[in-house]
Amino acid sequence: MLPFARIAILGLGLIGSSLARAVGEAMPTARITGHDSDPAVRDTVRRLGLCDDVTDTPGAAVTDADCVILCVPVGAMADLAAAIADDLPDNAVVSDVGSSKAGVAAALRAALPGRAIVPAHPVAGTERSGPEAGFASLFRGRWCILTPAEDADPAAVARVEAFWRALGAEVETMAADHHDLVLAITSHLPHLIAYSIVGTASDLEAVTRSEVIKYSAGGFRDFTRIAASDPTMWRDVFLANKDAVLEMLQRFTEDLTALQRAIRWDDGDALFDLFTRTRAIRRSIIEQGQDDERPDFGRSHA
Amino acid sequence: MLPFARIAILGLGLIGSSLARAVGEAMPTARITGHDSDPAVRDTVRRLGLCDDVTDTPGAAVTDADCVILCVPVGAMADLAAAIADDLPDNAVVSDVGSSKAGVAAALRAALPGRAIVPAHPVAGTERSGPEAGFASLFRGRWCILTPAEDADPAAVARVEAFWRALGAEVETMAADHHDLVLAITSHLPHLIAYSIVGTASDLEAVTRSEVIKYSAGGFRDFTRIAASDPTMWRDVFLANKDAVLEMLQRFTEDLTALQRAIRWDDGDALFDLFTRTRAIRRSIIEQGQDDERPDFGRSHA
Repeated sequence: MLPFARIAILGLGLIGSSLARAVGEAMPTARITGHDSDPAVRDTVRRLGLCDDVTDTPGAAVTDADCVILCVPVGAMADLAAAIADDLPDNAVVSDVGSSKAGVAAALRAALPGRAIVPAHPVAGTERSGPEAGFASLFRGRWCILTPAEDADPAAVARVEAFWRALGAEVETMAADHHDLVLAITSHLPHLIAYSIVGTASDLEAVTRSEVIKYSAGGFRDFTRIAASDPTMWRDVFLANKDAVLEMLQRFTEDLTALQRAIRWDDGDALFDLFTRTRAIRRSIIEQGQDDERPDFGRSHA
Repeated sequence: MLPFARIAILGLGLIGSSLARAVGEAMPTARITGHDSDPAVRDTVRRLGLCDDVTDTPGAAVTDADCVILCVPVGAMADLAAAIADDLPDNAVVSDVGSSKAGVAAALRAALPGRAIVPAHPVAGTERSGPEAGFASLFRGRWCILTPAEDADPAAVARVEAFWRALGAEVETMAADHHDLVLAITSHLPHLIAYSIVGTASDLEAVTRSEVIKYSAGGFRDFTRIAASDPTMWRDVFLANKDAVLEMLQRFTEDLTALQRAIRWDDGDALFDLFTRTRAIRRSIIEQGQDDERPDFGRSHA
């Protein structure tokens, strides 16, 4: 009993193409139809054989789907939803994989009134983009957060939950607003800070870019990974989740200012206390299977 | 022709114990004497057989050494140098592995006047601490920066350079002040920011610690790795390299404030421009062999 038999994936980048691969492995009898607005991406996905069919328009991809998953930057969700409205079967469940949820949910509801909408966010990814960067195991052991409206059809929610569990994900349900606050600290602010410090480092005059690169193993290189993430996706996230991001940024800035003061006044105890506390969080993340337990993320040292 | 025949390693944590292992592999005929102020660490190193001899006092470790390498937190360098002054052979070369250099160099010169001092900083490490966390290949392909004074003995500098090259490191020489500026951006500020955001995340009320951990794969977990680094080592670095760290922190804060403003005013173009620029730095780091080219640092996704 598959949760869905005919799945349309709209947007075939890292997440959409990983989804196509994961569905292909976990639900080999499900039919997958894909679409991407970029003809070159469509060609790549056809060549890789990730979908049973790749259509040139989003409407053509959804005509007989029982599940439609929007995998485009959050700023593109509203237009895409409007573009499929006329072709969407009445009984199809609509979901998405956007990194911010309240705004996306509102846009989907506005464009597709009366439809079964179950917004989702698989908290998984890499710094790579595009259909060739995807892989089937991306969601395995990661959390997928569902943010259905309070009046959402429980059967539709249960099917989307079963779908993600079948791909190896853990599933949690929460309100869209709370999701946006949680992800602002666990994902959006980390990306903003990483982008920012990489920008700072490349704009210095006293330290050359070549020096920044050569000595990046001191810690900086860690930040460059997430600062290599897709620019369009992340621009949209910050604009869509503005309030929560600004709130978390404000708190971070206050805490950083306190550290700055501790350094300026040689308050070694304050530094030591914080640096001791932060170790516990890392341990918990590893214990709960959310990161590699090997040192240095398991990077090769050969 | 080994650069040194009798090497004393003072401090046997991650770096000191990695050095003992690396010397053991690369220079099997060199005699390694080790010391650590912690009796438990000395016992572990004896049990692991990482040194030919482990002494209970630092002075006993250096009595017949031709090379002495101080591998302790930078705040402990001055006292350690003073403790070995009376036992140090006249012709021994003294080096260290401290992450900040101007202050350490001054401390070594003050405690050991007239000696051959060649400060060094291997830009390598992991988030783990202690003798069991070390490994022989830690320095391979990484940069080691030497910061000898202008009047340093060129022969001593050449021997320290040959020593690090024999361990597989690349070697660069620069002024101590410049080192401290470069590392402030490539290592010290990244650690400060990581410690800070992990602290911010664990202090929130609206988002639970359990949520922070569960959804950390969105980016936050990357920061927890370096925020799990040794608290004593890092407290000392920030106090020792105060001026350069505060200068870089000031620039970072300005840039972050500009991003904050771009988000507040919906300036998507400014965000997109920065997010596009930062990808290039990551590419260069990988091209120059300073990070794993596999996505997600090569983390396992199984």
